[in-house]
Amino acid sequence: MTARQKTLLLAVPINWASLWTTPIAQAAPHLKLAVHGRDAYDPGEIDYVVSFRPPPGLLKGFPKLQAVFSLGAGVDGFMADPDFPKHVPLVRFVHRSLSREMAQYIVLHVLTFHRQQRYFETAQAERKWRQTIPPRKTEDTRVGVLGLGEIGTMAAERLRDLDFPMLGWSRTRKDVKGVRSFAGLGELETFLSQSDILVCVLPLTSDTRHILNAKTFKMLPAGTYVINVARGGHLKEDDLIAAIDSGHLAGAALDVFETEPLPETSPLWAHPKISITPHIAALSDPQAMAQVAIDGIERLESGRPLVNVVDLARGY
Amino acid sequence: MTARQKTLLLAVPINWASLWTTPIAQAAPHLKLAVHGRDAYDPGEIDYVVSFRPPPGLLKGFPKLQAVFSLGAGVDGFMADPDFPKHVPLVRFVHRSLSREMAQYIVLHVLTFHRQQRYFETAQAERKWRQTIPPRKTEDTRVGVLGLGEIGTMAAERLRDLDFPMLGWSRTRKDVKGVRSFAGLGELETFLSQSDILVCVLPLTSDTRHILNAKTFKMLPAGTYVINVARGGHLKEDDLIAAIDSGHLAGAALDVFETEPLPETSPLWAHPKISITPHIAALSDPQAMAQVAIDGIERLESGRPLVNVVDLARGY
Repeated sequence: MTARQKTLLLAVPINWASLWTTPIAQAAPHLKLAVHGRDAYDPGEIDYVVSFRPPPGLLKGFPKLQAVFSLGAGVDGFMADPDFPKHVPLVRFVHRSLSREMAQYIVLHVLTFHRQQRYFETAQAERKWRQTIPPRKTEDTRVGVLGLGEIGTMAAERLRDLDFPMLGWSRTRKDVKGVRSFAGLGELETFLSQSDILVCVLPLTSDTRHILNAKTFKMLPAGTYVINVARGGHLKEDDLIAAIDSGHLAGAALDVFETEPLPETSPLWAHPKISITPHIAALSDPQAMAQVAIDGIERLESGRPLVNVVDLARGY
Repeated sequence: MTARQKTLLLAVPINWASLWTTPIAQAAPHLKLAVHGRDAYDPGEIDYVVSFRPPPGLLKGFPKLQAVFSLGAGVDGFMADPDFPKHVPLVRFVHRSLSREMAQYIVLHVLTFHRQQRYFETAQAERKWRQTIPPRKTEDTRVGVLGLGEIGTMAAERLRDLDFPMLGWSRTRKDVKGVRSFAGLGELETFLSQSDILVCVLPLTSDTRHILNAKTFKMLPAGTYVINVARGGHLKEDDLIAAIDSGHLAGAALDVFETEPLPETSPLWAHPKISITPHIAALSDPQAMAQVAIDGIERLESGRPLVNVVDLARGY
């Protein structure tokens, strides 16, 4: 008698599915692979799920489910399902490739602002040679990172190595070389009051929803630039526009939005001081994702503990 | 009898002089400071000169001249003076602040290209949510740095830490962790053939003038992006435009030009695949410059050897 073949269900938008099916099939030819919405499958045979924002209620219908693997670092898409089966381990996607893509995005947008790249682009369009001294030295430009997990830490280290004075804020105190650590709500205002550029890479939980709002913006120094690469739910978009239009904030770079795709009618699109990208800071690398899921499955099958399992009470 | 007060001459464009006079006066109140073109001074009393592109022939008229300090890392502006007094040590400006500003510029423009930032800016202008997978993974995007001195090394290290595979080319072989070293003209083609993004930070000498030309562009892989932050004299601008327009090169970011300011009639300004900045990659920090010059003067006055003295035969 041979062991039953295990089945992995991929539950993603159908037009993206082909990105993952090949690397998963290559990395784990012993698994049966089904694509939700494309393949017929028996809910009773599903052992593992790989997904990002599964249809609410889907996961509770799999009695043999042993583990769920998130395609992204954030798992708010799973937390939003009131029927998420809380006895099943949910594994966050933690991989150097993801942290590095996020760090690249953050470094790019910090430098674009800090080095006045838009000013020079306008000068080029007008064929004008406009040399100018940077308004603030690198040594005087403090970058505050909200969230010092894998992603925030890597971004902070890369900016630190370009000589920006770095601050980080997180739930618990962290020890990252060259990054001043602030912890908990009690230290949020002190942290914000010293952030000339503010980067949000927090997980989205009930504690962090709308953490970027009119009140916290007032705690920032005048002229702060805001970068949100976490979730749209962290930011009150109307408050951001008001804080920029009042002259208090210098501008923003946003990769995530309350509603995605960002509606064509959003005032964010045409704001001259807001840079918009369509949630591309880090599209999870399919090979890396397959590797993480297969590693987790091998751990389960050999009786070793899973890593990067979400603490459902904490929300990340 | 007291020692004669030493005189430092600042020879820079008059409208920039005030940037340096204050920090120099603060760092070395015991020196007499004269500004060429503004103050009357006796050529026989000049002990030290701080300059960038001195008027040809100026320096040979100072019989007591003990050292010349360059305001920039490159000293081609001094080498261009046929009457440069070759017995006087010429000190390059080597300082972390300069290397880091250059590294920031290079990282910014590598990431702008690599992460398709222009594509997303166009999408924003059209209010379009255009998610797209990067055409080439970071791990597959090789960045070649021409010149592995202080600046090239720091830029290569920062890009290496963002996971780009790095190559460097220099006159002599270098040992920089994570950077494959190529040396001399014999290895130039091998180096170029593996550079998906090419960064030039070479000193401008008779050996490196016009090193970026139609012939070397042909050695690059199709689709290479070129970044020149060294000197305009490294690049044949017409060859660059032809190589981009033929489709062989993907585009370029240029901070330096054959003629500066770049003439309003230059075809570079309006080229859709060329990003122009007005020689601002690293404006030497006046405080740092004063510190370097004062340190050199103290070395001379206490009989210690100068550091970063230019090898006039080598040209840097």
